[in-house]
Amino acid sequence: MKKLINDVDTVVADALRGMEAALSDRLRFDHENKVILRKDAPKQGKVGLVSGGGSGHEPMHGGFVGLGMLDAACAGEVFTSPVPDQMMAATAAVDGGAGVLHIVKNYTGDVMNFDMAAEMVAEAEGVRVESIVTNDDVAVQDSLYTAGRRGVGVTVLLEKIVGAAAEQGRDLDALLELAKKVNGGGRSMGVALTSCTVPSAGEPTFSLEEDEMELGIGIHGEPGRERVKLGSAREVAGMLVEAILADLDFTGSPVIAFVNGLGATPLLEQYLMYGEIARILEGNGITIARNLVGSYMTSLDMAGLSVTLLQADDDIVKLWDAPVNTPGLRWGC
Amino acid sequence: MKKLINDVDTVVADALRGMEAALSDRLRFDHENKVILRKDAPKQGKVGLVSGGGSGHEPMHGGFVGLGMLDAACAGEVFTSPVPDQMMAATAAVDGGAGVLHIVKNYTGDVMNFDMAAEMVAEAEGVRVESIVTNDDVAVQDSLYTAGRRGVGVTVLLEKIVGAAAEQGRDLDALLELAKKVNGGGRSMGVALTSCTVPSAGEPTFSLEEDEMELGIGIHGEPGRERVKLGSAREVAGMLVEAILADLDFTGSPVIAFVNGLGATPLLEQYLMYGEIARILEGNGITIARNLVGSYMTSLDMAGLSVTLLQADDDIVKLWDAPVNTPGLRWGC
Repeated sequence: MKKLINDVDTVVADALRGMEAALSDRLRFDHENKVILRKDAPKQGKVGLVSGGGSGHEPMHGGFVGLGMLDAACAGEVFTSPVPDQMMAATAAVDGGAGVLHIVKNYTGDVMNFDMAAEMVAEAEGVRVESIVTNDDVAVQDSLYTAGRRGVGVTVLLEKIVGAAAEQGRDLDALLELAKKVNGGGRSMGVALTSCTVPSAGEPTFSLEEDEMELGIGIHGEPGRERVKLGSAREVAGMLVEAILADLDFTGSPVIAFVNGLGATPLLEQYLMYGEIARILEGNGITIARNLVGSYMTSLDMAGLSVTLLQADDDIVKLWDAPVNTPGLRWGC
Repeated sequence: MKKLINDVDTVVADALRGMEAALSDRLRFDHENKVILRKDAPKQGKVGLVSGGGSGHEPMHGGFVGLGMLDAACAGEVFTSPVPDQMMAATAAVDGGAGVLHIVKNYTGDVMNFDMAAEMVAEAEGVRVESIVTNDDVAVQDSLYTAGRRGVGVTVLLEKIVGAAAEQGRDLDALLELAKKVNGGGRSMGVALTSCTVPSAGEPTFSLEEDEMELGIGIHGEPGRERVKLGSAREVAGMLVEAILADLDFTGSPVIAFVNGLGATPLLEQYLMYGEIARILEGNGITIARNLVGSYMTSLDMAGLSVTLLQADDDIVKLWDAPVNTPGLRWGC
């Protein structure tokens, strides 16, 4: 295993210290609880947005803390859910009297721990907490660590869109409704060309032949739909988009199209793939209102990418365009 | 070779089509010449900034075209210098009557072709062109493709800083002087944990044992100083910073510290390394005024990173903080 780390047991703690050294002008770090917070949290009267999950997907979620996105993110160990204590600390810290929304990717540990934390913090501190569980991955129904579909790329888009709405002062009920709309109108599908290597495991999670890819890969290296021969960019784009379009009709409204690198796939290939995907969508009569291309939700050093499409009405497009100022996503301010 | 491409001969052309599909709201593409331009170029009275080089280092340089950085970038084939025709087209397209500055990384092909283009465009179109050649890599004196030191990470910082000064309306002489100051006050050193794979080659450029790293790697996989045993993050940070500090005294003024991922190294490790580097700099009495952490100048799918330190006086810090709005770097606007 080749990694720039000191000790497999302190990877996340050490990385958080490094993040603090780089970003302490705008973010605050609760190292005891491994929570990353906006410096100005809590904001009175604003709904607090909290997410989190296993580390190894950076910049998600810690890199999305800031104006127009999250108020706090809980960092679990690599590919391991944070514990309820972390989520309680984050939730209590960002409550400005208007309640807190938990943004949770659908993995069994995350869902269970966020649920437990929501109950306990409601009871102990009187904070009203609601949760949205994202489950946009069309690849498989159940999976390792998941009952139902996995939450993937839509989570990034949801944090941006609901974050903008929270900044406008919308209340918890309105944000929950918006979050449900975003999750309901978003679908994703990914492909891996190589495995990632989890530091504590020390070796690749799975292996693929030199001419194989895993279609429908999970962001922790969980199995997808099938192993198939590596195709051309055009063929791979076709497989990913086809799986998404077979699941939801995207002809009714413009979409936000998101091509996400999983870690080791160069931006050159990501843009090349975006070109193929845009061409296929156009051929299917689908209008792209906005797009995002880059490595925003990664799987350590995995080569591959995922595609997310999101139905984007006028409200969602306006919220997408609203200012955002986080380490991982920044525009308009 | 596992890549999301259609054909090794059309990788760059296809990627530029994808970039155009994603970014045509703000950038203009001259596909014949493989030049990426600001939509509003030329700006009358503003010095035009042109850079370029082999592709495979994205987001550098095409991703740095926009307000506050470059006016145009020429995309060569992967790891291959653009030809003079491309540079002439870019230079002529961005000249707003105040002349053009070429920002050139010190590789033999780039330097020769930019020189030729500068002469020809001066003669044919009467454009005044000056050039800054970056050569910040302390690793080796001469190298494959290079007489003298290689130009690496400082190029990204220079494009930001000189780009901001051009936006303020400084003239060509002032920009050239500033560019020399930035290049003269910047030093870099990189390390590779794995090779990259150039599409047309089809196999890794070099190979390293499982416990080895290449200290002083070039961004095309050129040999560095030596192959050594892979150390801890703390040890590797020490080797990189030590090589830089042995070359230039950084105690006299604050610095901009830039940790740059070379492609496949996760952001988690980049932040972890930044923490180690910041600690070492502090121990050496060096003040970090600003920092940048991320994969901004890559080597396709290479695992590894580089460190750049830049002496940053008040003028440079203010220019660093000035608004920038490019696909690859964006803040303050």
